[in-house]
Amino acid sequence: MLNFEFKNPTKIIFGKGEISKIAAEIPKDQKILITYGGGSIKKNGVYEQVMQALQGHEVLEFSGIEPNPTFETLSKAVTLVQKENVDFLLAVGGGSVLDGTKFIAAAACFEGDSWDLLAKQAPFEKALPLGAVLTLPATGSESNGGSVITKKATQTKLPFGSPLLFPQFSVLDPTVTYSLPEQQISNGIVDAFVHVVEQYLTYPVNASIQDRFAEGLLLTLIEEGPKALENQEEPNYEVRANLMWAATMALNGLIGKGVPQDWATHMIGHELTALHGIDHARSIAIILPNMMQVRRTQKRAKLLQYAERVWNITTGDEEAIIDQAIQKTREFFESVGVPTRLGDYGVKEQDIPAIIEQLTNHRMVKLGEQREVTPEVSRQILELSL
Amino acid sequence: MLNFEFKNPTKIIFGKGEISKIAAEIPKDQKILITYGGGSIKKNGVYEQVMQALQGHEVLEFSGIEPNPTFETLSKAVTLVQKENVDFLLAVGGGSVLDGTKFIAAAACFEGDSWDLLAKQAPFEKALPLGAVLTLPATGSESNGGSVITKKATQTKLPFGSPLLFPQFSVLDPTVTYSLPEQQISNGIVDAFVHVVEQYLTYPVNASIQDRFAEGLLLTLIEEGPKALENQEEPNYEVRANLMWAATMALNGLIGKGVPQDWATHMIGHELTALHGIDHARSIAIILPNMMQVRRTQKRAKLLQYAERVWNITTGDEEAIIDQAIQKTREFFESVGVPTRLGDYGVKEQDIPAIIEQLTNHRMVKLGEQREVTPEVSRQILELSL
Repeated sequence: MLNFEFKNPTKIIFGKGEISKIAAEIPKDQKILITYGGGSIKKNGVYEQVMQALQGHEVLEFSGIEPNPTFETLSKAVTLVQKENVDFLLAVGGGSVLDGTKFIAAAACFEGDSWDLLAKQAPFEKALPLGAVLTLPATGSESNGGSVITKKATQTKLPFGSPLLFPQFSVLDPTVTYSLPEQQISNGIVDAFVHVVEQYLTYPVNASIQDRFAEGLLLTLIEEGPKALENQEEPNYEVRANLMWAATMALNGLIGKGVPQDWATHMIGHELTALHGIDHARSIAIILPNMMQVRRTQKRAKLLQYAERVWNITTGDEEAIIDQAIQKTREFFESVGVPTRLGDYGVKEQDIPAIIEQLTNHRMVKLGEQREVTPEVSRQILELSL
Repeated sequence: MLNFEFKNPTKIIFGKGEISKIAAEIPKDQKILITYGGGSIKKNGVYEQVMQALQGHEVLEFSGIEPNPTFETLSKAVTLVQKENVDFLLAVGGGSVLDGTKFIAAAACFEGDSWDLLAKQAPFEKALPLGAVLTLPATGSESNGGSVITKKATQTKLPFGSPLLFPQFSVLDPTVTYSLPEQQISNGIVDAFVHVVEQYLTYPVNASIQDRFAEGLLLTLIEEGPKALENQEEPNYEVRANLMWAATMALNGLIGKGVPQDWATHMIGHELTALHGIDHARSIAIILPNMMQVRRTQKRAKLLQYAERVWNITTGDEEAIIDQAIQKTREFFESVGVPTRLGDYGVKEQDIPAIIEQLTNHRMVKLGEQREVTPEVSRQILELSL
């Protein structure tokens, strides 16, 4: 096991009917800005529950945070926060609203060009406090200090983060997910799955608990994911609860502590999203199976462990076992309705050079746990993904 | 899954050589009281590392916190803290030093008889901040807000706790455990194992992740525990690291959230310790197998899951599977050097009524996840344990 530090101060408030508890988490004298996306929270009753809970607080609103939240949109919120002297940000939505709200929190206290927070990873000492009411289990942003923001002008999607950006609290009410469209449920399952794999499928460092926990999350997603897509008119609370908790645990930092991490799949996926508008989860579902394929030598020991413990593949020679594990991964994504080929999204061979060029522009040239995913390796992976 | 709230603000600093980091965690202007036990930290170099790290801080010491820390001893520390206006408590030791230091932290700020914190579960609004350098992986006290204290005068061992009592940080350096006597290693393995079981082996609520995590911890303890006892002259870092992290994860609150919890084994074990001086881990190793036996009907579904996933017992009829799982549990404890019969510790049939009387005195009369472990059930369990 590698040395590590772990601290996650976010208070999780989990369960049916818990949104009302937010009132007790934000001091009465704080001016709150509620941030949200396209307005689905006004259709599914979440907006109403939040407003009901916050009666007696001074509340402003900022809506229109898009999927893959943009610097351009969020900068308008920053101006509003500064003008109105907002004290507390309450994100009501999924990972995009969360990530966008973290950017607002940091940028509102930052002097200078706030894009530097991403492009130059500019350090910062202050951020507004934030909380969250999660509506879409997927990214884990509700319980970590990370964020990914897109600059529309240059089609650049970059991550940043800080311990200052952990939400103070996050409410996770699984019933809120009942009204999600099928595609968002599918995406959430795949997103959480790949988050786990990026922290697990590297090389062994004898971190028994991290491995067992990662495998437990993968097994949960494999067992519960398909159930969430059956009979969506009568959602199963337990299934939704398990998926919601899985997505949080997948990226709240715990399983990645003391082990090498990969994240190459994410970085290549980000370029697919920025250039071709492919949903984040779908972009990484395309890349992951071929990342496993191209790096099967370096990831051999963990691929064999993954095959046995997650997919129960124990017979055949080792190469065949790894082949099956990769195939099972692809089939799982497809089984929850996520196509795994670039062609399924209209991306063609001639589009690959531009993707590689963007990876290079963004200095994503030595990716992965061993920093060996060069642009040439990324190209191989993309070509296999056609 | 049941509704839950989860917040664990303790910063974990994990790994070889990390004790020096404590200096950065405590402001320079704070007067520190270091608390420890019988002085083993002076033999294994931990005391020296701590003192080295705290050069430039004002440091006082309080030693002599015993296993099953007593109200009587700790009250002396409380007097010292109040007299010297100590700002920060640094526990250097195992669970007993941690638990004792939590009592000091609360009692030093408490008006009135501080035994009321235990006996009357008196509420309190303030406690001194504390940190820890852990020397013995076992209780999980380094990352939770709980504590168990014994009043020697009445042989009463009682728990208390508060979110105020989470350590601000805990340093977990696995190399510190290299010098532990075999009995303490064994006890730590069993203690962590039973902590997990108390939160896992109840009745199913479809909490897939909590179950998988609990099973992952049990598997880690089963696989790594015996290795720690082999070849103790040349300790294996990875094994010690896995055990140390397992003990913390077993009782940092995570796996018990959203699920029913039992703790009847602990409450009966506490009486054995208070009356007969049996080590805590040994007291619960005696009780647990017979708790499973006596409550096998109520715990049936989880016992079958435990048998399959933890012990890989899949053949035979269900009663035989449960019998084997109980037997495997007992054998595991014995295999790490922990005897599991009352007779092994000199406790006889005629001692049972006094144990039952103490349970009743301490109002431990409706124990377990279904509150059905009455004194009569406890008596059955104790009789089976002879």
